[in-house]
Amino acid sequence: MHNIEPLAPEIAQRVRDSFGRQKMMALYGASLTGIGKGYVEISMPPSEIALRPSGIFHGSAIAGLTDVVAGYCAATIPVEDPYFVTVEFKINFLNQAKGELLIGRGKTIKAGATLTIIQTDLYTRSDERETHVATALVTMMQIKKR
Amino acid sequence: MHNIEPLAPEIAQRVRDSFGRQKMMALYGASLTGIGKGYVEISMPPSEIALRPSGIFHGSAIAGLTDVVAGYCAATIPVEDPYFVTVEFKINFLNQAKGELLIGRGKTIKAGATLTIIQTDLYTRSDERETHVATALVTMMQIKKR
Amino acid sequence: MHNIEPLAPEIAQRVRDSFGRQKMMALYGASLTGIGKGYVEISMPPSEIALRPSGIFHGSAIAGLTDVVAGYCAATIPVEDPYFVTVEFKINFLNQAKGELLIGRGKTIKAGATLTIIQTDLYTRSDERETHVATALVTMMQIKKR
Amino acid sequence: MHNIEPLAPEIAQRVRDSFGRQKMMALYGASLTGIGKGYVEISMPPSEIALRPSGIFHGSAIAGLTDVVAGYCAATIPVEDPYFVTVEFKINFLNQAKGELLIGRGKTIKAGATLTIIQTDLYTRSDERETHVATALVTMMQIKKR
Repeated sequence: MHNIEPLAPEIAQRVRDSFGRQKMMALYGASLTGIGKGYVEISMPPSEIALRPSGIFHGSAIAGLTDVVAGYCAATIPVEDPYFVTVEFKINFLNQAKGELLIGRGKTIKAGATLTIIQTDLYTRSDERETHVATALVTMMQIKKR
Repeated sequence: MHNIEPLAPEIAQRVRDSFGRQKMMALYGASLTGIGKGYVEISMPPSEIALRPSGIFHGSAIAGLTDVVAGYCAATIPVEDPYFVTVEFKINFLNQAKGELLIGRGKTIKAGATLTIIQTDLYTRSDERETHVATALVTMMQIKKR
Repeated sequence: MHNIEPLAPEIAQRVRDSFGRQKMMALYGASLTGIGKGYVEISMPPSEIALRPSGIFHGSAIAGLTDVVAGYCAATIPVEDPYFVTVEFKINFLNQAKGELLIGRGKTIKAGATLTIIQTDLYTRSDERETHVATALVTMMQIKKR
Repeated sequence: MHNIEPLAPEIAQRVRDSFGRQKMMALYGASLTGIGKGYVEISMPPSEIALRPSGIFHGSAIAGLTDVVAGYCAATIPVEDPYFVTVEFKINFLNQAKGELLIGRGKTIKAGATLTIIQTDLYTRSDERETHVATALVTMMQIKKR
């Protein structure tokens, strides 16, 4: 959709290692399915905990994925010793989140000295077709170690 | 903190029953600890899935609780056959979410014919003291059955 | 940047007429510089009222333009008798808004039966170069006349 | 409504002086009607530029006042050499903004080392009665001079 710049292998590895330690994403069975400079894609299958009884992905799962995608997206920016916290985010739910996969894609809009702004878009995939289920703006802050 | 108007027993029961069917909240071990007209409090203990490795409540758990609190808060408004979806929300993270309990309190700011606006505030409790960890504004829409 | 679908001439005229009646935009010297289905561009020159003493566009002018762009963007969607109100919006300021022109571009992300979600991006132009100064998500509600 | 802590006279004067230099607020005929530590109230009369043709305060005027209130609110926090920029804000419009006065009240929710979070609530006054017309969460960042 937009051009994804490749990432230095050591940064890609650092992001993958960090993702591997994430208990919450492991619990959801989520995988890191795309990575680039200022870009991350994470995909989550439907599961008992991610779905409402009606079979739709739960708003909490969608919001949670939004935050995680933004965090890893910021972590792909090549800074030394990166540690980011979420300052705030805003999410609009657009369509019913029904499908075989929930996909979150984050891209960095602005990487500042202190703050990084990321747009995360969420899609469900069903029969090879994607539905745009949510869009979010996320502000992350880099914490400098003293 | 603000005056909580009591709720008609049948509405309180309807909200409690619906909460009891929530798989995600059960997974987190969360309980409905307060209820009133346009008001709900839900509390969540620390757990392996709710915490980061550093022992702080995960942003995803906080954001997820925000959405759930707002939904039950809207459900306490005495409408017939209520069914609400989250239109959007915005959350600011204020302080490190460390403590023995994560508490989400939602209050209805505006209950309109179509849209209901809720403010959800989140606190951690530690040694009887509460820390304000996040604040959120949530827009819910009532879906009318045809 | 994205493909702009042309608009039926009577809808374009209705939007232009409505824009012509706007006192606030007239005061800012703003013009409607682009229009399409679900798309609007409005441009505003620097002026004593739009700038801070430092010569940067004022956050209030940027936020005001965001809301106006979203309203006209919704009005390009071919519904009969359209009347929209702003439910809420969220704006991130990205870069210093300095330049010869402030440009707001809105595109419809979702046009629902009740709610329409618009993304508005704001740019300043300086020496033929655009700087991305703000991005916003706006929720509009269509009000049905009884 | 909430307790307002008094402000050191030199900080109050600094805030009043800065408000007096604001061209945009002067244009709207707005006045600084309340001030305290982490608290500011600004009031704006109806005027040709602030109102829609229907006599309701314009969303742009309300959003603009929100941003200005938050900026002065942050400026009441007793830091040396304060200079704040708006990182982002989110506003929910709650009720029709009709009345003899538009009042914006900001209170600081969190004053951090880098970021300050403010809640701004907006009311219209009519026949001594106030209507809650909008609520907003604003993130400000303190810029350190080098």
